[in-house]
Amino acid sequence: MLSFENDYAEGAHEAILHRLIETNSEQLSGYGTDHYCADAKKKIQEACECKDTDIYFLVGGTQTNATVIDGLLAPYEGVIAASTGHVNVHEAGAIEATGHKVITLPQHDGKIRAEELETLLRTFWEDTSREHMVFPGMVYISHPTELGTLYTAAELENLSAICEAHQIPLYLDGARLGYGLATPGTDVTLPLIARCCDAFYIGGTKVGALCGEAVVFPHHHTPKHFLTTIKQHGALLAKGRLLGIQFDTLFTNDLYNKISRHAIEMADRLKKGFQERNLTFYLDSPTNQQFLVMEDTILERLKKQVVFSVWEKYDESHTIVRFATSWATKEEDIERLMSILDEIIYEV
Amino acid sequence: MLSFENDYAEGAHEAILHRLIETNSEQLSGYGTDHYCADAKKKIQEACECKDTDIYFLVGGTQTNATVIDGLLAPYEGVIAASTGHVNVHEAGAIEATGHKVITLPQHDGKIRAEELETLLRTFWEDTSREHMVFPGMVYISHPTELGTLYTAAELENLSAICEAHQIPLYLDGARLGYGLATPGTDVTLPLIARCCDAFYIGGTKVGALCGEAVVFPHHHTPKHFLTTIKQHGALLAKGRLLGIQFDTLFTNDLYNKISRHAIEMADRLKKGFQERNLTFYLDSPTNQQFLVMEDTILERLKKQVVFSVWEKYDESHTIVRFATSWATKEEDIERLMSILDEIIYEV
Amino acid sequence: MLSFENDYAEGAHEAILHRLIETNSEQLSGYGTDHYCADAKKKIQEACECKDTDIYFLVGGTQTNATVIDGLLAPYEGVIAASTGHVNVHEAGAIEATGHKVITLPQHDGKIRAEELETLLRTFWEDTSREHMVFPGMVYISHPTELGTLYTAAELENLSAICEAHQIPLYLDGARLGYGLATPGTDVTLPLIARCCDAFYIGGTKVGALCGEAVVFPHHHTPKHFLTTIKQHGALLAKGRLLGIQFDTLFTNDLYNKISRHAIEMADRLKKGFQERNLTFYLDSPTNQQFLVMEDTILERLKKQVVFSVWEKYDESHTIVRFATSWATKEEDIERLMSILDEIIYEV
Amino acid sequence: MLSFENDYAEGAHEAILHRLIETNSEQLSGYGTDHYCADAKKKIQEACECKDTDIYFLVGGTQTNATVIDGLLAPYEGVIAASTGHVNVHEAGAIEATGHKVITLPQHDGKIRAEELETLLRTFWEDTSREHMVFPGMVYISHPTELGTLYTAAELENLSAICEAHQIPLYLDGARLGYGLATPGTDVTLPLIARCCDAFYIGGTKVGALCGEAVVFPHHHTPKHFLTTIKQHGALLAKGRLLGIQFDTLFTNDLYNKISRHAIEMADRLKKGFQERNLTFYLDSPTNQQFLVMEDTILERLKKQVVFSVWEKYDESHTIVRFATSWATKEEDIERLMSILDEIIYEV
Repeated sequence: MLSFENDYAEGAHEAILHRLIETNSEQLSGYGTDHYCADAKKKIQEACECKDTDIYFLVGGTQTNATVIDGLLAPYEGVIAASTGHVNVHEAGAIEATGHKVITLPQHDGKIRAEELETLLRTFWEDTSREHMVFPGMVYISHPTELGTLYTAAELENLSAICEAHQIPLYLDGARLGYGLATPGTDVTLPLIARCCDAFYIGGTKVGALCGEAVVFPHHHTPKHFLTTIKQHGALLAKGRLLGIQFDTLFTNDLYNKISRHAIEMADRLKKGFQERNLTFYLDSPTNQQFLVMEDTILERLKKQVVFSVWEKYDESHTIVRFATSWATKEEDIERLMSILDEIIYEV
Repeated sequence: MLSFENDYAEGAHEAILHRLIETNSEQLSGYGTDHYCADAKKKIQEACECKDTDIYFLVGGTQTNATVIDGLLAPYEGVIAASTGHVNVHEAGAIEATGHKVITLPQHDGKIRAEELETLLRTFWEDTSREHMVFPGMVYISHPTELGTLYTAAELENLSAICEAHQIPLYLDGARLGYGLATPGTDVTLPLIARCCDAFYIGGTKVGALCGEAVVFPHHHTPKHFLTTIKQHGALLAKGRLLGIQFDTLFTNDLYNKISRHAIEMADRLKKGFQERNLTFYLDSPTNQQFLVMEDTILERLKKQVVFSVWEKYDESHTIVRFATSWATKEEDIERLMSILDEIIYEV
Repeated sequence: MLSFENDYAEGAHEAILHRLIETNSEQLSGYGTDHYCADAKKKIQEACECKDTDIYFLVGGTQTNATVIDGLLAPYEGVIAASTGHVNVHEAGAIEATGHKVITLPQHDGKIRAEELETLLRTFWEDTSREHMVFPGMVYISHPTELGTLYTAAELENLSAICEAHQIPLYLDGARLGYGLATPGTDVTLPLIARCCDAFYIGGTKVGALCGEAVVFPHHHTPKHFLTTIKQHGALLAKGRLLGIQFDTLFTNDLYNKISRHAIEMADRLKKGFQERNLTFYLDSPTNQQFLVMEDTILERLKKQVVFSVWEKYDESHTIVRFATSWATKEEDIERLMSILDEIIYEV
Repeated sequence: MLSFENDYAEGAHEAILHRLIETNSEQLSGYGTDHYCADAKKKIQEACECKDTDIYFLVGGTQTNATVIDGLLAPYEGVIAASTGHVNVHEAGAIEATGHKVITLPQHDGKIRAEELETLLRTFWEDTSREHMVFPGMVYISHPTELGTLYTAAELENLSAICEAHQIPLYLDGARLGYGLATPGTDVTLPLIARCCDAFYIGGTKVGALCGEAVVFPHHHTPKHFLTTIKQHGALLAKGRLLGIQFDTLFTNDLYNKISRHAIEMADRLKKGFQERNLTFYLDSPTNQQFLVMEDTILERLKKQVVFSVWEKYDESHTIVRFATSWATKEEDIERLMSILDEIIYEV
């Protein structure tokens, strides 16, 4: 069945599979010490324009968030996140399982605001009973956010300045970072992220890899003995080559950006198709996730022919739904979706 | 200096000190296995009108909350609480340190609402991605709340019915329970609490004891091997007699209620004094904690002569402050406070 | 360089890579809900001769151990393991990070003994202060062990009977299970393991897969909401297909056993080669890991031409070293190793 | 019934009770910020001969160990202890519940040996796979040990030097420290402990207080925001005065030492009585805990008239038992015990 359910429905980009086959019989040392990992790190450093920075390859997003956050926080600290942040909602309490509170800020289309962050931090430090409270120890943002929106360079720089003033790290969850960087009009680049953030990860799983996320600590504030922290979290892959080869491929010949741009082009067509059919957008997302407020009668018919994500109830008769494109989305699939929509809307 | 800072500024009720002296040279077995603990349990069972129920004596409130909540929850579950709940704000992340998320509901004068609880639970169980989320595993309320307000019997019964329908325990933090029970007009009694809640604690520290909280599991849903859980949390007092003797004294001749009533009478005078002086109440609290919205100029003068709690900023020029009475408050102290207020208000 | 360092130095068996390519463009639902996972489970159930049993696919060994052990234990319980057990030595405290103690038994060539297990359990239950101690809540064994040795069927059945008598689960770490099952003369089969154990995992990473371990709960004692526990541990792979396709391939046409047998045949040649050269074995291992006590002078020369694992110091002038074969070991590599050894021994 | 069960069978030294009564109506600020706590700290600093050092008052021993150890360790570190160490055996996994492994060393009459500690540390740092292991992050010793034995000054200095060389803190559990310091012939003093250890606690519960342990960080290596760590562990007493007043009393007029010496004198009589009756000592303890290997027939008769601790089985027909004296032991009770023993031995 036609699917726009998410951006991880297919396997991997074929260039990755070819590299896996080519390199398969080579005997390599384990746990990320092989030369493919080394090469991938070098290429990522170049793309970030920050040399000699520490990079680690982990397997999945929730795992990466829990490991990095646990590594960066002291036991008496928590992580600040938007109420819609992935770490607050969809990680089954992985952060709390490591002993840390997620301290929430209101979300605005999935983003947090610098002034609200500053107020939270100032209020905490002015509170005379703050020693009885969880210390705000770092800030978590996602880019693109869980709602597909993007920070501007100015917004990132503001958040970064506040974090620096309070001497707490800014961490960016880049599960879908490629799609954020490939969006026309964005002024956020990988080097800018590397300047603004103390830690971030470049998502592989949702951008063409079978699995894998690359964690970057651009300012040499890597948690001490971080490899052991990774191991303790069950996040150290024995065959580290699987991650190294994938990221090496993605960061060769600009592949990561190329396939991300394709997803954004496909999202653009999707968006235009929805607009032409007068469908209601839940919010204006510039990236590969498009959210609609859909009548439940249409939703019921549509889901017989198309797979998409049901987000949450909007009101009595409407539901928020998500359509995602990816590096693998085919133009003809968007055309098919539009035909199906035309039929259903016509019927109704 | 004159103090209305909190309800734990003095030592203990003198009857408790006398009993400690009387029993001091008696050799007793440790860890709560002595006959004073046994007697205290029997008296509490009678006061709760539930026989043979399990009761444990712990030392302090945060410790009790963390131990009970960790004992009642499965690792994949979190505890639902008001955003102002003590477990969410003022326990330094003690709940999260045991691996559990605090799932917040909006607070209404410190209380949660049955309909909002039901919506949260229904929404969770209808969410198709709930397996990626923290399961709501119990409900935490405080009575009186952190803002001094009280649930009605009907409200408690509603919360209880919802919890029962979803098969999750209802837990009541009774750090100031005595003051809640002693408030004229309340229809909430200890037996009613024992019927509605699966676990609750009767606060000693803030109601006349040197330390100590009595945890009651009225429906025999005591977590398995709970004594070991207490020990693991560092909450098992070697000289359990210290807790047993105190609660035995508090539950002999209705002492717990008598001294609580005194605090409420004192709070009533305080309230009347504030009303006569046209001071602004932050909210209408019927118990021993009274919250005012105070002009900062008055606050600054007042705090030179009186100790009270600064709660939080209200606006640019006002602050929320708390005055607490207790079992130990003296009438003359209230009169002195009023004289001081008169002077300051007159001056201004 | 010629390597006998471990059994995860190559990529994956080529049949796996072919299947990944064949299935790559198929759109599949995530998190292990795809039909390849379903097929793989069915095939594993058949191989275990236990129908309708719960099976989960996780990514790596340490992750699997931490997730399963945390899922099976109550917070007041610990896991019993040999002092050499992987969970006790080489998982960076992953078990303790979930709050549980590893309770050690003496190891005998990597194995624990039924009578010592029984004594530990009986001593605990007879100890009057046991409520102040960690409850022994499950037993962890590995098969093959970390030293390459194997339990007999009778030994497994004895351990199983003791666990059943004490109503605690027996869990078997099968990181190298294929090699254990393929060893000539063993009377331990997959169905026997499924009868004796309450949980075990079939290792993929070290037996031909890129990654992946299949956790089996043969007696329907799956921890409640285990998928959420997996997610909380960061162990739920978004592209579950990667694991499903690999295990489906390994359990098609007996591939898992075939490639395991190859490794054992290679280990046998290795062993004979060592014996012919009068090298000293640290212990008699029947599986794919061979341990030698090697003179440090030989070791130093050898490591210039061959990669192998340095285990630990034996005495002033000797070291314990490990040579591992795998599904990928080539006959010619063993011959080369022997030539190199001959040269070095001759030189010395 | 006559009891030598432990050193916490009675309430508190009467001087403490008197002070509690005298100070009872004084209004004091909470959480250890009162002037009694301040005075007590000053007196302890003087006794330790280290000025301006950080001191915290906690309630009980297990709580103190868990809080201090969790405060001192990084998440990837564990604590080294004797296999008989209280943290390893009788704290219900409180250390592991905070995420840290207890790494055991062999015990020699309850003590660890410097050379074995050094070997453990050297072996760890030489192990090439140490990043997959728990880092040894601190050393825990108890003085007196769980078996009543004492370190010599030279032994403490050796352990301290090794810890310093490896830059890990040395922590001393002084639950019974008074009894250790009061033992004739010991060359270990409080100032020596303060020089050798990075953290230690002076036990109150077992040396005359109702509850309370004083944690000292003599070298200003106090964990950052340690008060919040205490709060998070549920170990911050609201009425901190209860602890401050007790320690202030114990460290006024040398009371702590005086009452400790009494316990040692009583232990000495006990020991002589046992020797005269040819009872078999399990080991030679110079402090207030005396361990015998007792025939089970005698044990059975004795326990009808005397309470003592059953330690563990020695062999088929003998059991290790413990008799403890304390600050509260009466000479006449020892005489009574000897008469009872004479009767029983005569009978047998």
